[in-house]
Amino acid sequence: MPVPLLNCDMGESFGNWTMGLDEEVMPYVDCANIACGFHASDPDIMRRTVALAVASGVRIGAHPAYPDLQGFGRRSLACSPEEVEAMLLYQIGALDGICRAEGGRVAYVKPHGALYNDMARDPELLRGVMRAIRAYDPALPLLAMATADPAPTRALAEEMGVTLWFEAFADRAYDAGGHLVSRRRPGAVHHDPDVIVAQAVTLARGEPLIAEDGSQLRLSADTLCVHGDNAESIAAVRAIREAFRTLETA
Amino acid sequence: MPVPLLNCDMGESFGNWTMGLDEEVMPYVDCANIACGFHASDPDIMRRTVALAVASGVRIGAHPAYPDLQGFGRRSLACSPEEVEAMLLYQIGALDGICRAEGGRVAYVKPHGALYNDMARDPELLRGVMRAIRAYDPALPLLAMATADPAPTRALAEEMGVTLWFEAFADRAYDAGGHLVSRRRPGAVHHDPDVIVAQAVTLARGEPLIAEDGSQLRLSADTLCVHGDNAESIAAVRAIREAFRTLETA
Amino acid sequence: MPVPLLNCDMGESFGNWTMGLDEEVMPYVDCANIACGFHASDPDIMRRTVALAVASGVRIGAHPAYPDLQGFGRRSLACSPEEVEAMLLYQIGALDGICRAEGGRVAYVKPHGALYNDMARDPELLRGVMRAIRAYDPALPLLAMATADPAPTRALAEEMGVTLWFEAFADRAYDAGGHLVSRRRPGAVHHDPDVIVAQAVTLARGEPLIAEDGSQLRLSADTLCVHGDNAESIAAVRAIREAFRTLETA
Amino acid sequence: MPVPLLNCDMGESFGNWTMGLDEEVMPYVDCANIACGFHASDPDIMRRTVALAVASGVRIGAHPAYPDLQGFGRRSLACSPEEVEAMLLYQIGALDGICRAEGGRVAYVKPHGALYNDMARDPELLRGVMRAIRAYDPALPLLAMATADPAPTRALAEEMGVTLWFEAFADRAYDAGGHLVSRRRPGAVHHDPDVIVAQAVTLARGEPLIAEDGSQLRLSADTLCVHGDNAESIAAVRAIREAFRTLETA
Repeated sequence: MPVPLLNCDMGESFGNWTMGLDEEVMPYVDCANIACGFHASDPDIMRRTVALAVASGVRIGAHPAYPDLQGFGRRSLACSPEEVEAMLLYQIGALDGICRAEGGRVAYVKPHGALYNDMARDPELLRGVMRAIRAYDPALPLLAMATADPAPTRALAEEMGVTLWFEAFADRAYDAGGHLVSRRRPGAVHHDPDVIVAQAVTLARGEPLIAEDGSQLRLSADTLCVHGDNAESIAAVRAIREAFRTLETA
Repeated sequence: MPVPLLNCDMGESFGNWTMGLDEEVMPYVDCANIACGFHASDPDIMRRTVALAVASGVRIGAHPAYPDLQGFGRRSLACSPEEVEAMLLYQIGALDGICRAEGGRVAYVKPHGALYNDMARDPELLRGVMRAIRAYDPALPLLAMATADPAPTRALAEEMGVTLWFEAFADRAYDAGGHLVSRRRPGAVHHDPDVIVAQAVTLARGEPLIAEDGSQLRLSADTLCVHGDNAESIAAVRAIREAFRTLETA
Repeated sequence: MPVPLLNCDMGESFGNWTMGLDEEVMPYVDCANIACGFHASDPDIMRRTVALAVASGVRIGAHPAYPDLQGFGRRSLACSPEEVEAMLLYQIGALDGICRAEGGRVAYVKPHGALYNDMARDPELLRGVMRAIRAYDPALPLLAMATADPAPTRALAEEMGVTLWFEAFADRAYDAGGHLVSRRRPGAVHHDPDVIVAQAVTLARGEPLIAEDGSQLRLSADTLCVHGDNAESIAAVRAIREAFRTLETA
Repeated sequence: MPVPLLNCDMGESFGNWTMGLDEEVMPYVDCANIACGFHASDPDIMRRTVALAVASGVRIGAHPAYPDLQGFGRRSLACSPEEVEAMLLYQIGALDGICRAEGGRVAYVKPHGALYNDMARDPELLRGVMRAIRAYDPALPLLAMATADPAPTRALAEEMGVTLWFEAFADRAYDAGGHLVSRRRPGAVHHDPDVIVAQAVTLARGEPLIAEDGSQLRLSADTLCVHGDNAESIAAVRAIREAFRTLETA
C-alpha cells in the first residue's frame, strides 16, 4: 500500500548559526521543506541544503515565511493577502533560483510557522497563498494541515486550481476537531518512539486516531511532518521509515 | 542603424519610501533594471514595477546587490565569489518568481552599485557573477561597464559561456582608460541636455568620445544607462529617445 | 493658559530614502518623536534629526516600534510583553546614545504605529512598555492616546510608577468612545485648516469635541500630534502654533 | 602582581539560534563583550546576557559591529568614519539601555570582527570609533589590538581623550610585527592547553613571546581575549584563570 510522504523542515541554519541535523535526517525523508531566507537560512545555506537534497534524491519544497528572522517566523505579522502573495512569489522564486545551480527544482510549497497557522484560520490569506502558487506553477502542491473537515479547504483549492497535500503529525496529540493540542498542555507531544511509530502507521493505514477527548478522529494524510532537530527525533524518523517499508511491501 | 538599448534603474522604492519616477520614465526606455530587495525594493514594489514594465513592453532586468538597504548597495561588502554567486541566484530567482505573476520574465542581469564596481575590479567576483547567470539561464545577458579595452572581459565571458552587453553613460565624463571620472571632480556629470544627447548619439554611432585629457576614447556600447530620478533626467531620456528615433530610421 | 505640547513624528527617512519635511516643521513643534531604526531611520539619520531638534530647542522623544522597516511599523507583530519591553529598552537606549553626541537627551517615549495601537488594546503589552520606561528612566513620560475614559490607563501608570502624557489629534474625527474614526470612513481626516485649528483650540481649552455621532466628547490632552509630511500639514501646524500663542497670552 | 583581565565574546546567539557556552565561561572571565544586535544577538538575548554578567559580577562591554547578521560582522563593509561613529553610538546606547533594566552599565567598548580589524588599519576609522566613545562616555576604555609598536595608537588615543586597553591572545601565534598569524597558516591557533596557559603567563609577566620567525616579541597586554565556544576553549580559560590566581598572589 502507498504510504504518506515524510516531510521535514531543513536549511534552518543562518549565517554562522547552525540548526538541525540536516545531513543525518535527509536519508530517511521524501521531502525537504527548505527555508527561504525570511525566517531562517541565507543564499549560501539554501544552496548547501538544496545540494544535499538533490544528492539524496529528496524532493525540494519551498518553506516561505513572514519576514522575521529574530522570531523564526513564529510571530504573526499582520500582512494583507496581497503582501503574503508577493512574499511567497519572492521566496519560491529565490529558492528555485538556487535550485537551478544544483540541478533541482522546487516541487511543492509549505508555508512556515505563523504563516502556516494564519492561512489555516483566514481564508483570504489562504487565497493569497494559493494565488501565488497558481501564478508560480499550478503543478506545485500546497501542504496544508489535515483536519477533521477538509472539505472547505478542498473546495477552495479546487476553485483556485491548486493541488493540496494534507499533512499530519505522528508525534502530536490531536483534539476532536483535528487540531493539534497546544504544546503548553501535558501530553501534547509524543516522545515515546513506539507511540510515534504507531500513530504514523495508523495515519498511513487511514485508520482513525484517538483524539484527546477519547473520540475517534479520521485524518486523511498525504504526508507526515517529521523532525531532524536532535538524535531523538531522527531515531523516530528512522523508525517510521522502517515501519513504512513494511507497509509498502504489504 | 541599430541604436543602443536604454536601460534605467527602477523599483528602488522600499516599503513606505518612494524613489524614482518609474511611471514617467518607463515609456522611453527599453530595459528596466529592477531592484531585488537587497539594496532597495520589496516583494510588493517589485510586483508593481514588473507589472508596469510588462504593460509598457519593457524588458525586465534583475538588478541584484549586496545586502545593504541602509547603504543602498553602494558600500562594498567583502563577500567571497561563492557568496556573490549564491546571492545572485537568490535575487534573480526572486524577481523571476514575481515576474511569473505578471506575465514577464527576467531577460538580463545588471549587478548594482558597489557589486557592479567590485566585479569590474575583481575577476574572481566577476566569475562568481557569471557562474550564477550561467546556472540560472545562460541566455541572460550580463551588463558590464564598457571600457577602452573590453578584450579581457569578453574573453572571460566567452570562457564562462555568458553573453555580455556593454553599457556606457551619456551623462558622465570618461577618462582616457574608459573609466568614469569620479563624481567628486568638476565636470564629471553632464547636466546640459544637448551635451547628453550629443554623447548618446556619438556612442550610438560608434564614434569616439573625447576623454577628460582630450584624447579620443572609443567605447562599444550595447546599452546606455539613463536615469529616472527627477524631471531633468527624464527630459534627457526623452531627448535621447527622440535622437535615437532619427538615427534608427536613418 | 497653558496649552498642549505639539508633538510630531520625525527622522522617518531611511538610508537614501527621504520622508517628511523635518526642517520645515521643527520650528513649530515642542516635541520631536524620533524613529529609532526599527520602523524607519538609521544611526546617521537619527544623529542628523537629533542635531536638528537640539538646535531648535525641541524635546526629543524616542519613537520605538516593532522591527518592520518594510511595513513602517504599521503591521502588528505578535510579540510577548517581555519582547516589547526589551525592544523598547534597546531603542530608547540607542537614541539616547546618539543624543549624547549632540548634547541632547531622550525626554519622553511615544511608541509608534501598530505598537501604539496594540498597547492601547492590550494591558499586558502596556505593562511591558511601562516596565521598560520605568527601568530606563521613570522620569520619562509615556505618550498614550487620550480616550473618553482615561481612568484605567491612569491607574495602571500609577501602579507602575510611570508618568502619562495623553495625546489627542486636531485633524482627526473621533467616535463617541474617544477613538479615532477609521481612515477608511469619510470625514475621518480633517483637511480644512480652520477645522483643524478649531479642534486644536477646543482641546487646548478643555472643551468638549463633537464626536461622529453628534455627542459631546471630552478629552484631556497634554499634547497634540501634528504632522510634517507635506506643505499642507505644515501650514496646519503653523496655524495651530499661532492660535496657541494667542491662548497662552490670554 | 596584577594580571591582564580576561575578556570573552558573549551573547552571540540570535533569536532561536544558540551560539557559545556563555553560562559556562562566565565564572572565569572579568569582562563580557556583549553583541549589540548588528552582527549577532537581539534585545531579548542581550537582556539575558547582561543579567548573567551582572549576576556574576562581570564587567559589561559593548561589542558593536557592522550591520551584517549573515556574515556575523566578519565581512568588511565600506563605511565612512561618520557612519562608524553613529553606529557605535547607537549600539553602545542600545546595550546600555538594556543594562539599565538589570542594574548594570556598559563599562568598555570592543569593536567586533571586521570593524576591529578595519580600525586597526585605518586611522580615520579609529578616530570615528574614538569620537563615538568620547561622546558617549570618555571614561569607557576602548579595547584595541596590542602590537609591537603601540605608540601611534596611544598617541591618537591621547589626542582624542580616550583610554585604551590593549588586548592580546593566548591561543594565537604572532608574527614579528605583533600581528596575528593568519588562521589559514599551520600553527596559527594553539590547541594545546599547556601552550595556551604558558603564553598567557608570559604575557601577564610582560615577558617576550617568540614570534613566528623566532624573534622576540614584547606585547603590552591589559587584557587577554578568551573564548567560550566549546568545552576545549572553556577548559583553556579555566586553566588560565588558575594560573593567574597563582600569579596574583605571587
